[in-house]
Amino acid sequence: MSSVKLAEKKLRSLSRLLEESGAESLVIVSRGNFLYVTGVDAGGILYMNANTGERIALVPLMEFWKVSEAVEGKMDVYAVSRLAFDEEPDYPLILGTLTDAVSRFAGKDSKIALDGEPSQQLKEKLSGKNFIDISKEVSLVRRKKMEEEIDLIEKASDITERAVLRASASLREGMTEKELYAELLYSLYREGADGLAFDPIVAFEENASNPHALPGGRKLRRGNAVVIDAGAKSSSYCSDMTRTILFNSPQYRPLLENLISSYYAALDNVRPGSSAKEVDAQARRALSWRRLEKFFIHSLGHGVGVEVHEAPSVSPASDETLLEGDVITIEPGFYIPRKLGMRVENTVLVTEKGGKPLNKLEFFIEI
Amino acid sequence: MSSVKLAEKKLRSLSRLLEESGAESLVIVSRGNFLYVTGVDAGGILYMNANTGERIALVPLMEFWKVSEAVEGKMDVYAVSRLAFDEEPDYPLILGTLTDAVSRFAGKDSKIALDGEPSQQLKEKLSGKNFIDISKEVSLVRRKKMEEEIDLIEKASDITERAVLRASASLREGMTEKELYAELLYSLYREGADGLAFDPIVAFEENASNPHALPGGRKLRRGNAVVIDAGAKSSSYCSDMTRTILFNSPQYRPLLENLISSYYAALDNVRPGSSAKEVDAQARRALSWRRLEKFFIHSLGHGVGVEVHEAPSVSPASDETLLEGDVITIEPGFYIPRKLGMRVENTVLVTEKGGKPLNKLEFFIEI
Repeated sequence: MSSVKLAEKKLRSLSRLLEESGAESLVIVSRGNFLYVTGVDAGGILYMNANTGERIALVPLMEFWKVSEAVEGKMDVYAVSRLAFDEEPDYPLILGTLTDAVSRFAGKDSKIALDGEPSQQLKEKLSGKNFIDISKEVSLVRRKKMEEEIDLIEKASDITERAVLRASASLREGMTEKELYAELLYSLYREGADGLAFDPIVAFEENASNPHALPGGRKLRRGNAVVIDAGAKSSSYCSDMTRTILFNSPQYRPLLENLISSYYAALDNVRPGSSAKEVDAQARRALSWRRLEKFFIHSLGHGVGVEVHEAPSVSPASDETLLEGDVITIEPGFYIPRKLGMRVENTVLVTEKGGKPLNKLEFFIEI
Repeated sequence: MSSVKLAEKKLRSLSRLLEESGAESLVIVSRGNFLYVTGVDAGGILYMNANTGERIALVPLMEFWKVSEAVEGKMDVYAVSRLAFDEEPDYPLILGTLTDAVSRFAGKDSKIALDGEPSQQLKEKLSGKNFIDISKEVSLVRRKKMEEEIDLIEKASDITERAVLRASASLREGMTEKELYAELLYSLYREGADGLAFDPIVAFEENASNPHALPGGRKLRRGNAVVIDAGAKSSSYCSDMTRTILFNSPQYRPLLENLISSYYAALDNVRPGSSAKEVDAQARRALSWRRLEKFFIHSLGHGVGVEVHEAPSVSPASDETLLEGDVITIEPGFYIPRKLGMRVENTVLVTEKGGKPLNKLEFFIEI
């Protein structure tokens, strides 16, 4: 399925939300939601009208052609710029800011559905309007992944796995984190990534005790644990996976085993209707076998889609319920300050029958 | 100079701002400003008190050790988390959100200097307080780059240049954009980047007509122009440079020459007191030689520091005046839809004597 067709499906879902809201028009302003619909991370604004059927994308001038291609025939795209040219442009141009532009269209409506609270600017430009916040409804649409979206996340996961294996093959004593990082980035693009879901993490042993470690000059030694956390994009869809590779370090097998069992304890509890908080708690509980609980200092996971962190959150503070079609990460880890960090992570689809990992690569990798 | 010493200098500048504001305390909430002071992109909050001399960093638990190391001895760092552990942690932990945490300290103050408008959450937690927005003053501090900061940007620029040359050496007919992208990322880390200032851009010929092109499967042919826009980080400091390489494409020499002359037309006007808008206008005017003006669809440049886009903006809509110590990009380009795009860019320091490019690599590269 082409990305234009996928955009059309999403636009129809938004149309339904607009109808249900009872508003005359829908305005989408969040960067993530714009990316979701168009597949382009352009920071534009979408406008849809329930009565006229208008579907309009307002985008910064320099993103005009990219967005036009991505929604070809499905939306009217306008370039928005504060640049005035002497010559007539051969594309529809609105002079001003994005907020100026959207107020031109929404100015005629009295009741506007918006994906969030209106910004100060928008309030001023559209004063007296009745805004309805439908950000939660949009989030629910985004959470329910369609088959095409799952295929893309799975494709991104495959690319990531091949890249991690390819980079791992270069592991050797004395190699620095930065050298491995270079190999990993190279491998991600050589294996076909359309982009990076996030800046990967490569960390050895004590450096891995920072969950968000930056790669440095630390050299790999026998007996080290190597954490690689990476995600390719396929089209605009993200993947997210972590493996801890034991580099001649059999002493860490019990710890890795405990992490893996923690992952499965969580996975066993993944199904539509599960409490996200409870899934997090199961993973935490399982870490007590090796007394790793107090070193698991972050949330268990998060939703994944066109953004690598999206709804739902899977954490002790989450009050979300898992839904069929959610794609989430399960990523237990432990971080012993200045000594050692390890983490395992898969991206998992919530199906009627339970959690279905979208990763195939084994957790237990020794080199 | 160590990054801890650099953080100390910045903390002193903030202390001066706090004194000048007449407030009892200063709260820093913007991600970029936190990064500026600590060198860590951790999304924390800083609190400083004019009377007690308190200097406090509140950070998400999983960033605690990284920030602690970065500001060692210069600030008291607290981990903030909504996770409660059965065992006592061996680091200072505040249970709750970052906003909860800062309100504990700022709760005793009546007049608070803040780097922006208070968020709804902060307003609620600290209701009745008198907030003074000093975001402009903080921005001015950040704009005036110290010698150590300039050295880091220059170092990042050197790494970027070596990486671009190294990647360019791999150019050959039939190579895809993604393959070149892989070489570029690999080269950036092999040449010593501490991180990427932004996702680089690699685009051939018509794909380069999108200023923010994503690398694809397009194959390089003789007669093509190759745009490479990349920036390494050194420590937390960014660089930003673009070269358009002529790959057996002498027909584009006149266009490249016009871009280069546009760059110099702007550079000639860079000095303390220049209007940013006027510098932008000079570059635009110079593009009229080859009638490229209407295809220059973005701003001429932006400030560069710990963020790759920071103040000042150098655009037709900017009302900024350039100041000594500003580091800005000058990046004229043209984008002919679906046909061809080209851009050149250097990072430039504003000195008393005028603009001083921090890049050394020539613009005119033919392969």
